[in-house]
Amino acid sequence: MTQPSIPTEAQPYRIAPQTGTGFRLSKGDVLVVIDPLGEQVSDLMAFAADTVGSEGQAEWLSSGRTFDYNETIYLTTGHQLYSNRSRVMFTLLRDDVGRHDFLLTPCSTETFEILYPPGTAEGHPSCFGNLVKAFAPFGIEPDQIPTTLNIFMNVLVDEKGKVNIGPPISQPGQRLELRAEMDLIVGLTACSAEGSNNGTFKPIDYFVIPADTQAE
Amino acid sequence: MTQPSIPTEAQPYRIAPQTGTGFRLSKGDVLVVIDPLGEQVSDLMAFAADTVGSEGQAEWLSSGRTFDYNETIYLTTGHQLYSNRSRVMFTLLRDDVGRHDFLLTPCSTETFEILYPPGTAEGHPSCFGNLVKAFAPFGIEPDQIPTTLNIFMNVLVDEKGKVNIGPPISQPGQRLELRAEMDLIVGLTACSAEGSNNGTFKPIDYFVIPADTQAE
Repeated sequence: MTQPSIPTEAQPYRIAPQTGTGFRLSKGDVLVVIDPLGEQVSDLMAFAADTVGSEGQAEWLSSGRTFDYNETIYLTTGHQLYSNRSRVMFTLLRDDVGRHDFLLTPCSTETFEILYPPGTAEGHPSCFGNLVKAFAPFGIEPDQIPTTLNIFMNVLVDEKGKVNIGPPISQPGQRLELRAEMDLIVGLTACSAEGSNNGTFKPIDYFVIPADTQAE
Repeated sequence: MTQPSIPTEAQPYRIAPQTGTGFRLSKGDVLVVIDPLGEQVSDLMAFAADTVGSEGQAEWLSSGRTFDYNETIYLTTGHQLYSNRSRVMFTLLRDDVGRHDFLLTPCSTETFEILYPPGTAEGHPSCFGNLVKAFAPFGIEPDQIPTTLNIFMNVLVDEKGKVNIGPPISQPGQRLELRAEMDLIVGLTACSAEGSNNGTFKPIDYFVIPADTQAE
């Protein structure tokens, strides 16, 4: 995998279909996640960089705290994403799509075993597996990966609480922009599950607007 | 805190208002959680007993995997609660109430700072604080506590995704029964947050039906 140290808008980093990547963000950096072809989903998880270390403790992006403090299950422009320690990890600056899921875990081998037709799981790439690989160089263990922010995922909840996953409504080139509010280690995927991306495995693009290059 | 080793239906263990407790369950044990006076909430978290140890890794009850595999945000009789490793931790055997939340984290000092009137947080007991105390003797660290199963909590999600917390609909004596599907370390609270229990702090009762005493 060849990854430029700082992907830019002119030269974004492309996450190939059914893969993932890991990188650092500094406080103030803006992460821009783009669905380049439309109808794709990207799983994002983040850990506070200063809490990942030899003692094995970590501060992580929390779906439950984020739902609680924003009083909504859908996150969009202006919302802040919280850690398990109730600190703000990201502020959402721009959202072209308006539907991002924070209910469901990244797809895993077991997702395909439990929810998909028999035989699907074997050898199937998964966002969980790709996040495990993305975080391994940073010393983050698989058991530490919780519910992800599923960017562009179209999860609908009816009045009885039933969860339905529809085709993503993201159009080609639409984006979500997240400003890092602390130094972070981020994992990001191009989703591997046909049930989440309408059966089309596509890439995800991203780039970073460094804090020190931003206009007023 | 005086706790009988195995609370029974004849002599349940009473969790005092705004406190919590921790205990072990063996595979096959049935945990019965009762709202003795009505309109109270109980936060439950569990870890697989065989993964809590010196290496600091743990298998924990996962809201995201449970929502995903059950395809619902509301859990009731017949549903299974999954770990982050996609193993079944509990089966729900009996549910008198039909409304249990797995969206929101346990209330914490920060919950009262962010969501409550100024001045509420100082010295306020919290389910998070009580779970930290309950799990400490087992070597489980605060950062390992994720989104809890909020038993009897009345969380409503409207069509726009807005989260509203209503008064609990549980009546005095109503219960939730959960069968442990593996050896577990469990933390359980009587909720401390006035916004979740209609401003009335009440106790929670529980007892265990041991696996080896159950009828066919």
